Amino acid sequence: MLNFEFHNPTHIIFGKDTLKELSKQVPQDAKVLILYGGGSVKRFGTLDQVKTYLEGRQIFEFGGIEPNPQYDTLMKAVEIVKQEKINFLLAVGGGSVMDGTKFVSIASTYEGENKEELFSYGTVPAEVAPCLPIGTVVTLPATGSEMNNGGVITSRLGKLAIFSPKAFPVFSILDPELTYTLPETQVANGIVDTFIHTVEQYVTLPSEARFQDRTAEGILQTLIEIGKTTIDNPTDYDARANLVWCATMALNGLIGAGVPQDWTTHSIGHEITALYGIDHAKTLAILQPSIWNVRREQKQAKLLQYAERVWGISEGEIDTRIDQAIKRTRDFFESLGIATHLSDYGITEEGINDIVDALERHGMTQLSETGEVTLEVSRKILEGAM
Amino acid sequence: MLNFEFHNPTHIIFGKDTLKELSKQVPQDAKVLILYGGGSVKRFGTLDQVKTYLEGRQIFEFGGIEPNPQYDTLMKAVEIVKQEKINFLLAVGGGSVMDGTKFVSIASTYEGENKEELFSYGTVPAEVAPCLPIGTVVTLPATGSEMNNGGVITSRLGKLAIFSPKAFPVFSILDPELTYTLPETQVANGIVDTFIHTVEQYVTLPSEARFQDRTAEGILQTLIEIGKTTIDNPTDYDARANLVWCATMALNGLIGAGVPQDWTTHSIGHEITALYGIDHAKTLAILQPSIWNVRREQKQAKLLQYAERVWGISEGEIDTRIDQAIKRTRDFFESLGIATHLSDYGITEEGINDIVDALERHGMTQLSETGEVTLEVSRKILEGAM
Repeated sequence: MLNFEFHNPTHIIFGKDTLKELSKQVPQDAKVLILYGGGSVKRFGTLDQVKTYLEGRQIFEFGGIEPNPQYDTLMKAVEIVKQEKINFLLAVGGGSVMDGTKFVSIASTYEGENKEELFSYGTVPAEVAPCLPIGTVVTLPATGSEMNNGGVITSRLGKLAIFSPKAFPVFSILDPELTYTLPETQVANGIVDTFIHTVEQYVTLPSEARFQDRTAEGILQTLIEIGKTTIDNPTDYDARANLVWCATMALNGLIGAGVPQDWTTHSIGHEITALYGIDHAKTLAILQPSIWNVRREQKQAKLLQYAERVWGISEGEIDTRIDQAIKRTRDFFESLGIATHLSDYGITEEGINDIVDALERHGMTQLSETGEVTLEVSRKILEGAM
Repeated sequence: MLNFEFHNPTHIIFGKDTLKELSKQVPQDAKVLILYGGGSVKRFGTLDQVKTYLEGRQIFEFGGIEPNPQYDTLMKAVEIVKQEKINFLLAVGGGSVMDGTKFVSIASTYEGENKEELFSYGTVPAEVAPCLPIGTVVTLPATGSEMNNGGVITSRLGKLAIFSPKAFPVFSILDPELTYTLPETQVANGIVDTFIHTVEQYVTLPSEARFQDRTAEGILQTLIEIGKTTIDNPTDYDARANLVWCATMALNGLIGAGVPQDWTTHSIGHEITALYGIDHAKTLAILQPSIWNVRREQKQAKLLQYAERVWGISEGEIDTRIDQAIKRTRDFFESLGIATHLSDYGITEEGINDIVDALERHGMTQLSETGEVTLEVSRKILEGAM
């Protein structure tokens, strides 16, 4: 097991009818900015309920955060925070809204004029930006943003991750019933996003981290068991509750503690989304099978473990088992209604050049747990994903 | 899945050579009381190292905390805290030292003259006792106390649990190498304690909490895999690291979130320890097989799941599978050198009356996840454990 630190102070409130906990969790004297996305929280009444439970506080609203939250949009929220002396941010939505809110939290307390400078830190120290407190109400299970301290923001500089030790939400309310109204495709995206977060911290190099491995396998098995069910029967409470909790657990530091990590899938995926506007999760579903196929030797031990423990594949030649595990994974994504080839999205061989160029521009030339995914390997992965 | 809250702010620092992190984690201007147990931390040099890393702080020491920490002993530490205006407590030891330190933290900030009053709260509210900050250096993997907010203290009133929302350690340093010098029996105890913590949150009633179930199973499988190894080869780093991390994960709220819990084993076990001085973990190893045998109907679904997923027992009559699972569990404990019958410890049929009387005296008349473990059922369990 590798050395690690684990520290996650977010207070999770999980279950039916938990939205009312807002009235206890948000300070009585708070000046609250509620941040949300495209308006579905308005349409389905969640926003109204939220406001009811915040009665007595001064409330401001900021809607319109995009699926890939944009720097320019978020800067408008930063303006409101400064103008109105907001001291509490409440994100109501999915990963994009939560990620965007984290950026607003960090940027509002950063002295510098140009907030884009923050991206150069990666992890922004508390003394550079002490952050405003954040609460979240999760309406889309996928990114785990409700229980971690990072976000991904799109600016002129690209799709960039930003972290802060102070950006953990103070609390997150996860009521699975608030996610019942999601469109099928977004639920499918959430399942795939959670699946890939998990394998990026698990299908790497063996590191004798047995608890972490088994916990990762538990998430994957759960997603496989309940994935189709929660798409087909969105109001099946238990299926949805399991998805919501797995999404949180997949990216809160737990399964990544003491193990090597390989974020190749996300790194290449971000470029595809930035260039072609394809949903984040769909880019991951496209890339993962090809990444495993190309890197089957480096990942052999963990791919065989994955094949056996997650899919029950334990017989046959090594390459056959790996092939089967890759196929089962692809089939699983497809069963959720997610196409897994670049060509399914109209991307041609030509497009691969653009993606590789973008990777080069952003310095993504040594990806993976070993740094072996050079531009050449990325190209091979993309070619294999056609 | 049941509704739940999960909030665990302890900062874990895990791995080789992490003791030096003390110099960063304990405030420079702290007045520190170091609490420890019977002196092995002195003998093996850990205490000296700790003091080196605390250089610059005012340091006081309090040794002699017993394996079952005594109220009267701890009150002496409370006196020192008051006299010397201590503002940081550092527990260096195992569960007893950490539990005791939590009591000192709570009691030192409680206004009332009689600190035994605190036991009546169960969970002591922050306004009743704001607590002193605690750090821990773990030298014995077992109780999970390093990442939770509870402790068990022995006073004239019995062996009683005490909790506080403020009693989570601020940080815990877990260096598996610091546990290499432990006697075999203590390592075996730690494995069994961790195992039982896990099953008390897992072998209950089905609640569709798939992540929690699988994570619990992962802990159990890991303990079975590495238990014997880490006793026989105490300096096998990876085996010991897996034990240390599993011990923490088994009782930090994670696997108990959203599921029914059954603390029968601990409740009866505490009485046996109080009456006969038998090691805590050994009382658990004695009771668990008999509890499952007596309550096989109520726990049938989860016992079968346990049999299949943890021990690979999936064929045969229901009762046969449960019998086999119980036998495998008992064999596992015995393989670690832990006897699993009351009679092995010299307790006679007579003694059972005393244990049942003690349970009655302490109001333990409706134990388990369903409250069905009456004194009569407890007696049956004890008789089955002869």
